[in-house]
Amino acid sequence: MKKSINKIVMIGAGNLGTNLATAIHKSGYQIVQVFSRTSESARKLAKKTNALYTSSLDEIYPYADLYILALPDDAVLGFLKSKKLNNFFMVHTSGSLPVSVFKPFSNKFGVFYPLQTFSKNKILNFTDIPVCIEGNDKRTESDLMKIAKNISRNVMVLSSEKRKQAHLAAVFACNFTNHMYTIADEILSRKNISFDLIRPLIQETSEKVKLMKPALAQTGPALRKDKQILSAHMKMLAKDENYKKIYSFVSKSILSKTK
Amino acid sequence: MKKSINKIVMIGAGNLGTNLATAIHKSGYQIVQVFSRTSESARKLAKKTNALYTSSLDEIYPYADLYILALPDDAVLGFLKSKKLNNFFMVHTSGSLPVSVFKPFSNKFGVFYPLQTFSKNKILNFTDIPVCIEGNDKRTESDLMKIAKNISRNVMVLSSEKRKQAHLAAVFACNFTNHMYTIADEILSRKNISFDLIRPLIQETSEKVKLMKPALAQTGPALRKDKQILSAHMKMLAKDENYKKIYSFVSKSILSKTK
Repeated sequence: MKKSINKIVMIGAGNLGTNLATAIHKSGYQIVQVFSRTSESARKLAKKTNALYTSSLDEIYPYADLYILALPDDAVLGFLKSKKLNNFFMVHTSGSLPVSVFKPFSNKFGVFYPLQTFSKNKILNFTDIPVCIEGNDKRTESDLMKIAKNISRNVMVLSSEKRKQAHLAAVFACNFTNHMYTIADEILSRKNISFDLIRPLIQETSEKVKLMKPALAQTGPALRKDKQILSAHMKMLAKDENYKKIYSFVSKSILSKTK
Repeated sequence: MKKSINKIVMIGAGNLGTNLATAIHKSGYQIVQVFSRTSESARKLAKKTNALYTSSLDEIYPYADLYILALPDDAVLGFLKSKKLNNFFMVHTSGSLPVSVFKPFSNKFGVFYPLQTFSKNKILNFTDIPVCIEGNDKRTESDLMKIAKNISRNVMVLSSEKRKQAHLAAVFACNFTNHMYTIADEILSRKNISFDLIRPLIQETSEKVKLMKPALAQTGPALRKDKQILSAHMKMLAKDENYKKIYSFVSKSILSKTK
């Protein structure tokens, strides 16, 4: 019987790599080594996870049970082409890359995609974070399932096609949402109004969709078809070409959903 | 000495009117009457606040200390032109209308703007909701301050000009944010993926900005300048004209903020 997964190498020490390695380390697996092109990032994460570290491809530890690639998509492809991990058990953590990218390089591979927004300076508890996994065969999937279930109680197998859609949805729900906050902050700052003024509004907006569908939680001038406010706001944004376009297209999109 | 405010008439029984009347009623003021064009809405809110109700302009109670107009902006103007409340103490609850709209109609007037997103079917506690007030003179402002402080510990005087900016910021931070959730939900639904998958992501995105500036919380492919993902996502949205435009302009706007 094949021995179970224990020793893990983390390739990449960015926002996701840092959070994931920390969670895996805490759950009892051994992070043997952290690799990052940036030696300082590798060192910091290695310290957090009681691991060794390197910034040299040639020094990657060759006897680990699993190599987790927490790299930007284009870096994953570049990394695989270096062939340093040929025939090792590898997973990537990307929302968009199909699992098949590994095919030319290994016989045991998969995806380990935690659907969350991560920052290096805010280490998250993984208990409720959805972890979407995929493996090249049933046994690989079951190996990944075991690790995932050790860190989260919200694990599911998701195909490459569905994961890609989930990632696109996540970009809207998280990255674009955060940019809306950023624009709001900028509009307030210009008039010396504190961002604190809208923090309760931001919290309630996200609270609402804990229980109801977002389409039912929609409010605001576009939904009310209040053309007076819409045109006043467009005038207020006259000097902000990007913001004016965003205001116009998002309002149009909200309007198109109303009866 | 002029008697203090006690009897209040609520004009409008929509999302905001319903929440505000309920909070004011609970804090010990008397809602004597609810007016709404829709008799059923008036009745429901009147029941919640132990008030009388009417849907007829001619039956509005004429002896109240304060009339709160919780109406869409254009309805406020139409209402004032009916002159039913000439010379009464009136406030509106709008983020955008200047306080001066009341000038031709009264000598005591102001603004009572709770900066929050409201739904009729979710009655909120006002304790932490920012209430932005403005009055035509110091005494009116102090009258409004007293009422506002009875329902919220987050009250401030905000000029019409600043309130307009705060409202524009709120549209981005709340209405547009909720539409981003709606788009995400639609993208997931098409592939039969549950909205539950991204609920933890939505919560964490709003949690992050409790403590940090949103510009520092930004993540995602646009921030990373990951052109491969950006162009793949644009292709996935090929059939959604509105969403494609939103994706493109929001990404461009995020990119323009990165160094």
